[in-house]
Amino acid sequence: MDNTYGSAFRIHTFGESHGQAIGVVVDGCPAGVRIDEDFIQQELDRRRPGQSAIVTQRKEADRAEILSGIFEGYSTGTPIALLIRNADAKSQDYDHLRQVFRPSHADYTYYARFGRRDHRGGGRSSARETAARVAGGAIAKLLLTQCTTIRMAAWVHSVGSLSMPELEAMPEPAAIEANPVRCPDAGAAIAMEALIREVRKAGDTIGGIVAGRITGMPPGLGAPVFDRLHADLGKAMLSINAAKGFEYGSGFAGTHLRGSQHNDPFYTEKTSGRIRTQTNHSGGIQGGISNGEDVYFKVAFKPVATLLQEQPTVDRDGQATVVQGKGRHDPCVLPRAVPIVEAMAALTLADHWLRARTSIVDA
Amino acid sequence: MDNTYGSAFRIHTFGESHGQAIGVVVDGCPAGVRIDEDFIQQELDRRRPGQSAIVTQRKEADRAEILSGIFEGYSTGTPIALLIRNADAKSQDYDHLRQVFRPSHADYTYYARFGRRDHRGGGRSSARETAARVAGGAIAKLLLTQCTTIRMAAWVHSVGSLSMPELEAMPEPAAIEANPVRCPDAGAAIAMEALIREVRKAGDTIGGIVAGRITGMPPGLGAPVFDRLHADLGKAMLSINAAKGFEYGSGFAGTHLRGSQHNDPFYTEKTSGRIRTQTNHSGGIQGGISNGEDVYFKVAFKPVATLLQEQPTVDRDGQATVVQGKGRHDPCVLPRAVPIVEAMAALTLADHWLRARTSIVDA
Amino acid sequence: MDNTYGSAFRIHTFGESHGQAIGVVVDGCPAGVRIDEDFIQQELDRRRPGQSAIVTQRKEADRAEILSGIFEGYSTGTPIALLIRNADAKSQDYDHLRQVFRPSHADYTYYARFGRRDHRGGGRSSARETAARVAGGAIAKLLLTQCTTIRMAAWVHSVGSLSMPELEAMPEPAAIEANPVRCPDAGAAIAMEALIREVRKAGDTIGGIVAGRITGMPPGLGAPVFDRLHADLGKAMLSINAAKGFEYGSGFAGTHLRGSQHNDPFYTEKTSGRIRTQTNHSGGIQGGISNGEDVYFKVAFKPVATLLQEQPTVDRDGQATVVQGKGRHDPCVLPRAVPIVEAMAALTLADHWLRARTSIVDA
Amino acid sequence: MDNTYGSAFRIHTFGESHGQAIGVVVDGCPAGVRIDEDFIQQELDRRRPGQSAIVTQRKEADRAEILSGIFEGYSTGTPIALLIRNADAKSQDYDHLRQVFRPSHADYTYYARFGRRDHRGGGRSSARETAARVAGGAIAKLLLTQCTTIRMAAWVHSVGSLSMPELEAMPEPAAIEANPVRCPDAGAAIAMEALIREVRKAGDTIGGIVAGRITGMPPGLGAPVFDRLHADLGKAMLSINAAKGFEYGSGFAGTHLRGSQHNDPFYTEKTSGRIRTQTNHSGGIQGGISNGEDVYFKVAFKPVATLLQEQPTVDRDGQATVVQGKGRHDPCVLPRAVPIVEAMAALTLADHWLRARTSIVDA
Repeated sequence: MDNTYGSAFRIHTFGESHGQAIGVVVDGCPAGVRIDEDFIQQELDRRRPGQSAIVTQRKEADRAEILSGIFEGYSTGTPIALLIRNADAKSQDYDHLRQVFRPSHADYTYYARFGRRDHRGGGRSSARETAARVAGGAIAKLLLTQCTTIRMAAWVHSVGSLSMPELEAMPEPAAIEANPVRCPDAGAAIAMEALIREVRKAGDTIGGIVAGRITGMPPGLGAPVFDRLHADLGKAMLSINAAKGFEYGSGFAGTHLRGSQHNDPFYTEKTSGRIRTQTNHSGGIQGGISNGEDVYFKVAFKPVATLLQEQPTVDRDGQATVVQGKGRHDPCVLPRAVPIVEAMAALTLADHWLRARTSIVDA
Repeated sequence: MDNTYGSAFRIHTFGESHGQAIGVVVDGCPAGVRIDEDFIQQELDRRRPGQSAIVTQRKEADRAEILSGIFEGYSTGTPIALLIRNADAKSQDYDHLRQVFRPSHADYTYYARFGRRDHRGGGRSSARETAARVAGGAIAKLLLTQCTTIRMAAWVHSVGSLSMPELEAMPEPAAIEANPVRCPDAGAAIAMEALIREVRKAGDTIGGIVAGRITGMPPGLGAPVFDRLHADLGKAMLSINAAKGFEYGSGFAGTHLRGSQHNDPFYTEKTSGRIRTQTNHSGGIQGGISNGEDVYFKVAFKPVATLLQEQPTVDRDGQATVVQGKGRHDPCVLPRAVPIVEAMAALTLADHWLRARTSIVDA
Repeated sequence: MDNTYGSAFRIHTFGESHGQAIGVVVDGCPAGVRIDEDFIQQELDRRRPGQSAIVTQRKEADRAEILSGIFEGYSTGTPIALLIRNADAKSQDYDHLRQVFRPSHADYTYYARFGRRDHRGGGRSSARETAARVAGGAIAKLLLTQCTTIRMAAWVHSVGSLSMPELEAMPEPAAIEANPVRCPDAGAAIAMEALIREVRKAGDTIGGIVAGRITGMPPGLGAPVFDRLHADLGKAMLSINAAKGFEYGSGFAGTHLRGSQHNDPFYTEKTSGRIRTQTNHSGGIQGGISNGEDVYFKVAFKPVATLLQEQPTVDRDGQATVVQGKGRHDPCVLPRAVPIVEAMAALTLADHWLRARTSIVDA
Repeated sequence: MDNTYGSAFRIHTFGESHGQAIGVVVDGCPAGVRIDEDFIQQELDRRRPGQSAIVTQRKEADRAEILSGIFEGYSTGTPIALLIRNADAKSQDYDHLRQVFRPSHADYTYYARFGRRDHRGGGRSSARETAARVAGGAIAKLLLTQCTTIRMAAWVHSVGSLSMPELEAMPEPAAIEANPVRCPDAGAAIAMEALIREVRKAGDTIGGIVAGRITGMPPGLGAPVFDRLHADLGKAMLSINAAKGFEYGSGFAGTHLRGSQHNDPFYTEKTSGRIRTQTNHSGGIQGGISNGEDVYFKVAFKPVATLLQEQPTVDRDGQATVVQGKGRHDPCVLPRAVPIVEAMAALTLADHWLRARTSIVDA
């Protein structure tokens, strides 16, 4: 269902970039989760515009108001609605776009699908919608943190052609948050930040790759045969604005290996008695179900479509024209994509964790 | 829902590798589609074991029996059930695996999820389930062929490190089917086939990449914000056995580009009056909705997990043991994955084409 | 899904009686519906507390704020969120109920299901939630009015043992709204109002029956085999607070008839050429699908559970205690149930009308 | 979704009366349920044609073949497909109906919805489809019997105007099965059987009421606010062929009571310490969630539409004609409806029992 994500634990998001508000209804969250409002706000702050010099300067406090579903600090099992008012929508910046289709934006395709569109700031297709996901994802994180060992982190792995080295474990959250790029490799982060500044100065934009890792996985999460854990994770990530690709475990590079190199031999860990694998090309998922090893994945993001340069395009009547970005835009979506990737991962895991509760009876 | 794919046009698959049968119930197919049984069989034959020397030699005719939903050659709008009996299941080949977890298979994870499993041939986790998808996908293809201009093809783009050149258009179906690898580049196909034979001789396996392309797209297919066309395509592809990655349009490589290079300028095509793009880094999808240009994508497949070599592993009690593949297995999943990729693409497109019928009213 | 109703046209409601707000997200509404905010408010006013002397005197303006999904007066195909703030929540009226289970309320059962509950005003189980349905139903009505001939009305058929005569056609809306009971039979309405006043004076409550009728039905709405039009209508009505029964067409009384009396012979209407039935015991639905005749149905509502009398009950520890309603309550739910019944009918019809758009192709 | 019932525990049915087969895919059944094939067959035998002199004499053994999902006698958590071949389909009995719409059947409405139809024996609209539900319901019963205290029974409460006395407890299964009417009151059963025989002799048919009761209910089953337990039960019952009404607890009669008469006071049961109610007008459900008391309900069934009498009607072109039932038909649907009502109740309870597993965390 178009604006709904999840099955047992699900979110419904609503709202346009320049409308009254955006928001999310979280449904299926079990009763008994301690709802830490500061944490929700903290997550939103990580996605918020204006947080650093290398992101859009739109001024949105992105304060989430909880409307329902919480009583005396705990979830009650009823829908949790969270509302974020749009404060700094400068709709007049978009007046010139009323009849014009911006290249590589969703202007033309929304018009093709719906026969009309809210042109202000991209309307529903704006990445502003993802604030609602981050708010919903924060609830999912609270559930997972309080009830499971599952933890997740995402970070910027590359910007353009600048990459940090592959990580074999989850980086410290502090290392990710230590710089505005959200790259845990301090050296790479400096180069990436310089690159983003240079690109912005040119009125241009740049893409990159976000990496993610999930630790503390219980074995047995994920559902045959369509709702494989990685298929749902993949859909979640690909549903983020500007995403162009997803891979997990050995990914595309793994296609070069032989089975004898790629297979992950099982062994029993002495200390814990747990069944583990010696290598983890599988990325913690086999047959669509977690095996207890870390899940790791990458998401490719294209360069932002809005340029502060003149570009040729057409208007609604098909007449040739030019367009140039005004207003306040991100030269690079990556730093702000990090909390969104984490949110979508948290939502997917919370959903599958709940679903796994119905899979066995002791008959 | 675990074993269901699709929303308006949907399939429910069932069956295990060594059970009585596998099958599919297609629900939501509109009334009035001419059902060509030969075509369904032809699609199944492309996925069938034993079709060439480089695939598994399990002898399955994979005859689909239509049980319902068709009357006098046309779909009636009621569920279409298709049944494929398992004929050549040599379950005794799997007796030694009853208590053993094969490396990089779903043996351990199904056990973790469900507390028990049908160990014979991988049970439900076997790629045999995908025959049901191909049968359902054939119905979707019939719908699309009869009612739309949408056509799709998939082919083997690489095997291990051997790649064919990138294609800018859809290859001829005959070129794809001209060799057992299903690579439309005849020269590359010869090298790939030799590589697969060499790998098989070594008792090993190898992965690769399947490419796909969808032409004749009407603008306006795809749904904001979670059910983006590429997100659903991605989930569909990632739900195929052994898939490790998905990218569309410029994909992972596109992360190296600047926005000024990546954006696809619009223009109006003289002859048709259609709004088109000069380049197609977007892969025919913007904001999750088709813009009328070709959709193209790649799917990464890992090497098959079953090796005819001895591998260390553990049994259900965590005791170390070894396992070696017996029976009849694919050294490379790619050639048989091609019709499955097409089927999942057809199912996704049929679903979104139907869904788009409810998006506008002329009020 | 718990708090979601509908498939193609769907609503998600949220909110508690004494929380910040209640609201609804309408998803799947096609683009192009003219959104008349006054009409939405007018519908809410029909359900509003304090509208007459025989309903609860809680003072809620029930102003709906549209947060999203509308642009320049038309639906855009994106989620329409409507927010209603809670203004006159006197939560202290419920302090004595924190640990006590009121008889025939949902206090105990919500506690059993969720292990905790918002006790203030019944929390999520309060009929206040139905305001969100009425707001969503107003959108559905606008769609149906602008795009179809489908119209619906509900009215109070009986209060306690006082019934009005059976109607064979839809009454005038003005006749329904002419009195505070919403009974289109003026004589019966006077008696009913007197009865409600008498019951209220006694600190007691009373039930009754709401009748509904849907005209202008196109043939062909409804889906085999589970989502029969009357099954979905029935679920919709039974999901309204205090509903105890649903019947359509000949209903329970029809069980006394022979088939030869009950069958509705077909004939062709001269003037229109339409296929019609001479009688309409079927209630306009055959095999779960509309045949073009009027759909008519009845919904039974039990007496409101909150009494201004002392009643024995137990607290959370199972200790015997007594409870007595304070605050402002409805002596009879019927007059305010009328717009809710209409809203649920409109939502069901809008959903099936959209779904029917995907049922046939001209192949 | 049209041919799917249930959310966590769900069935997909397929098949037409005179097609190859009918069947059901049960998805979401947890692993570990002991599958007793004899029990499934026994349930089907209760619905089977030809079981007594007062039902249709179509000769169908209704043997269910299990195709998947079971391993060594236990459910594995994967879809359980059950197939029932059509054996005694005398399609030629329906040749005269190819272009004719039988009164009060679904012939016209299916044609209106789908533009074509399988006219043989009513095609998909035939009550034969309910055999698939009974097979699926048997799986649900096995789950409930093995894992819960929940038990259900249905029986014939009235035939035409002949009613048995109201029951305050569940009758013995043996008493229900003691006569072909499935009325546990032996005296009433004799009169009912005589009435059915008389009606049949006249080439006519007759309706009636099935009563149902569910015992051993745990408190806490059912979901706010749309998926109330009784709303889902109601939909389930109304989706059965020929159903015209549903009521639970005090039902329509309860509308005559005052709140002071209708409310069910809570008390704590000495022996068990359980919170119970002194009366049970609520029918075991409050706010849509079970309170642990028995759930009881009634379902109204209209007289069968097929008469062995001549009736006026029209054909596909709207031309007046007459129709007369041939072949083998039920004079009264009630005796065979009993196991269907039980099956739908079992499916609803299994679904909600599973769903309740995800409602609380101990955070």
